[in-house]
Amino acid sequence: MLSLKHIHIKSFNENLAYLNKNCLEYSIEDITALSQVEIQTENSKIYAFLQIVDDDSFVSPTQLGLNEEAFANLGEPVGSEVSISIAAPAPSRTALKRKIAGNILSPQDYKFIVKDIINRRYSDIDIASFIVAGGAFISANEAYGLTDALVNNSKIKWDDDNLVVDHHCLGGVPGNKTDIIIAAIIGAYGMAMPKTVAKATTSCASVADTMGVLCNVDLPEERFKELVTSNRAVIADYEQLDIAEAVKSISKVERHLGLTQQEFLLSEVLAIKIAAGVTHLLIDIPVGENARIKTTYEAIRLRKLAEFIGDRMGIDIDVVITDGSEPIGNGIGALLEARDVIQVLKNKPNAPQDLMEKSLFLAGRILEFNPNLRGGQGYETASEILKSGQALEKLNEIIKAQGKKEQPEIGSYVRDVLAPESGEITAIDNAQINRIGIWAGVRQYVGAGLDLLKKVGDLVDAGEPLYRIYACTQDDLDLAETVVENSIGYTIKNNR
Amino acid sequence: MLSLKHIHIKSFNENLAYLNKNCLEYSIEDITALSQVEIQTENSKIYAFLQIVDDDSFVSPTQLGLNEEAFANLGEPVGSEVSISIAAPAPSRTALKRKIAGNILSPQDYKFIVKDIINRRYSDIDIASFIVAGGAFISANEAYGLTDALVNNSKIKWDDDNLVVDHHCLGGVPGNKTDIIIAAIIGAYGMAMPKTVAKATTSCASVADTMGVLCNVDLPEERFKELVTSNRAVIADYEQLDIAEAVKSISKVERHLGLTQQEFLLSEVLAIKIAAGVTHLLIDIPVGENARIKTTYEAIRLRKLAEFIGDRMGIDIDVVITDGSEPIGNGIGALLEARDVIQVLKNKPNAPQDLMEKSLFLAGRILEFNPNLRGGQGYETASEILKSGQALEKLNEIIKAQGKKEQPEIGSYVRDVLAPESGEITAIDNAQINRIGIWAGVRQYVGAGLDLLKKVGDLVDAGEPLYRIYACTQDDLDLAETVVENSIGYTIKNNR
Repeated sequence: MLSLKHIHIKSFNENLAYLNKNCLEYSIEDITALSQVEIQTENSKIYAFLQIVDDDSFVSPTQLGLNEEAFANLGEPVGSEVSISIAAPAPSRTALKRKIAGNILSPQDYKFIVKDIINRRYSDIDIASFIVAGGAFISANEAYGLTDALVNNSKIKWDDDNLVVDHHCLGGVPGNKTDIIIAAIIGAYGMAMPKTVAKATTSCASVADTMGVLCNVDLPEERFKELVTSNRAVIADYEQLDIAEAVKSISKVERHLGLTQQEFLLSEVLAIKIAAGVTHLLIDIPVGENARIKTTYEAIRLRKLAEFIGDRMGIDIDVVITDGSEPIGNGIGALLEARDVIQVLKNKPNAPQDLMEKSLFLAGRILEFNPNLRGGQGYETASEILKSGQALEKLNEIIKAQGKKEQPEIGSYVRDVLAPESGEITAIDNAQINRIGIWAGVRQYVGAGLDLLKKVGDLVDAGEPLYRIYACTQDDLDLAETVVENSIGYTIKNNR
Repeated sequence: MLSLKHIHIKSFNENLAYLNKNCLEYSIEDITALSQVEIQTENSKIYAFLQIVDDDSFVSPTQLGLNEEAFANLGEPVGSEVSISIAAPAPSRTALKRKIAGNILSPQDYKFIVKDIINRRYSDIDIASFIVAGGAFISANEAYGLTDALVNNSKIKWDDDNLVVDHHCLGGVPGNKTDIIIAAIIGAYGMAMPKTVAKATTSCASVADTMGVLCNVDLPEERFKELVTSNRAVIADYEQLDIAEAVKSISKVERHLGLTQQEFLLSEVLAIKIAAGVTHLLIDIPVGENARIKTTYEAIRLRKLAEFIGDRMGIDIDVVITDGSEPIGNGIGALLEARDVIQVLKNKPNAPQDLMEKSLFLAGRILEFNPNLRGGQGYETASEILKSGQALEKLNEIIKAQGKKEQPEIGSYVRDVLAPESGEITAIDNAQINRIGIWAGVRQYVGAGLDLLKKVGDLVDAGEPLYRIYACTQDDLDLAETVVENSIGYTIKNNR
């Protein structure tokens, strides 16, 4: 038996165990690289991956160290007697191997896999192989099985509401911050909208990032519930809620890999929404050459898949396919996107019209989930709520309730990117704009980003600014400029 | 700037950097989970993954700790000034994503990917995604590109020999320890056979494990070369040689995942052999319902692929397809397999005849690489060398030169598995026999294993022992017995 030591190292959600190389109880040579070990006390059992220590003052030959994650998981006091053994393969490992070999799994297989992920029987390496294999091919029935497994009975109940709505954009279009405007409109109307959001995977700023500029989005589950009762709409990071635990582990690896495979992403989104107790969900699929979904054909396939899963899971899903050919709004990056949102809610004349129109269209569809609203009146109702200032008032209430934040400063390292020739702007490359934003530091600084001064259809003269880059360090500005040198991301056609 | 600290933790070949959570130079919140960081001194630069420390005595806010792997990689003294920054994505990341999306990559893409693996720009998670995506589909030209990239100009030169041979079995058949017998025969004949072997991925014992019972197989490259000159044949773990570095990282992850995808495995094997300077290679593909390769069709496909890659890489490859329907020899597990090998080399009457026959067949094919050997005389020549005792003498020379080991003890926890009924043995399930061996502890103890007392075609009476399980602890024996309870792995047909 070894004596338990608490090692104050955080390893981003992976259980690590530290064993001295001269450990008397076990021969290190016997432990294959990366082997998972089973760690047991009288009352508790966890799984962890080994690290070998050659420093007796850190972990002695009679001790077993556990990192923050593993120590919390085991839940036993320092000095407890612990034993370790090589872990048997995770029960779902054969199912995982079958998926890697290209087979179709049953919903039961997915339940076992998700259970193993939640119990930390899967390393990040295992999760990566699951994502890549599943992302390569997954049948509709498998996507349903995965969604159901990811919900994992962690559903939030809303006793007072039988119409609980949310909206999700499958994304890939920069600056698409309709969500906050929609939540303000829906909340003002009085529908329950417990909006769950997540950190950005591959884009410049997610709803969580933009809303995070205005107020706190890390809410404990109790507070999340209270705010829906009192305010109707709430926008919170799902990672702080006790729902869809496996999605958190999976999306951490997806972020690391920079992967967003459609069917997997859809199952994850649906699982989060269903676990949040949503009964009626609007999904927006923007289609564009440089959006995440490039063809209408692909969008229709995803729409059908969402409808199929929705039917099986007992949730009402409405899917709209929208134009994803250029960024929505002008700002890209959390602070600039928040500015766009506020301008729209304040009905400012210079507010981005495309952002306003798209928000009203989507909010209208959500309002029409209400069976008492006359068909076709959703858009008008949404428009009235926006124009009257009720939506702005609601957003201010939401911000205050969640905990208003001090407005951060915009990046002070600025450069305008100019039109190389005169003509009409015929295309803006979402992916390139996204890339410029990321190199300008949007992931590290909320004040970094791009402000698009011209959009598709605008006429420009050579030398006129197309967009402005904001960075928070000179380094970031320089890096963004090297990306711009490859391509400015704008196509200008001279028809004159 | 932070001050460099050496942390005595080994993390199985991954670079880890330890940063205090109150580090004054960097804001931890800015570092996304699992982000790779770039660590720089005036003279050196490495990439590592972050761990966050909440213990000032371990790593203070002005220090940066590096684990054994990262510290050795950086190669700078303790106390050096180091700076860290978030690493730009690895150059080959877009190629990796294209492979995950199912595209065909160019040989140049594979060069970039392998370079990033060698430079530790890929985490194990990235490598896993590469293996799973590449294993799902890889074209012949890609497999060539991968092989060539894996060789990575790390080729050993054998100036005195223009006929350098080796043999590899694509495996999945327990007890297939022909390799040591073949090496002894080839060495006695006088051909250069710098045999590179690897630790077991999914089987009970690899050649490295079995040879490891008899003598040391961890040889530095200089000694490896000397022994080929003096002894002709040598058997060494390729991981100790400075060749095919990326294969080491890839196979570590494959071992963890328990994956052995044919095309990938073939490319890795060919890369190791080519890097070891082999000019003529024999590949044995055993086909059987429970072998790794299940159909002749699949074996022929792999044969053609091996020939295609061989032609392009300028190595002479001979592929034979053999019977993989049941285990070869009687012993399974390193010690028992070594016993079989010695029995064959000593020409003992109770030596397993199938192991002897297969070894002679394969050794004969290898001898026929010699253009001066008359066609068809390989088998007879091999047989003469074996029968005359020259092969045994050669193995003893090899063992002595590499460093003879004390013979370990066979497991003392023993159980005989009995025939449940009388009849003829019509099949032995390789996979199940493998599973029983693994649970009996073959991976932890060389003395654990199975001794097959009956083979396909034998007649047995009910209650007669089919095989004997050896374990080194009561726990292991119990575990093996639970596997046997599911299936004994033998099919007996009563035709009487």
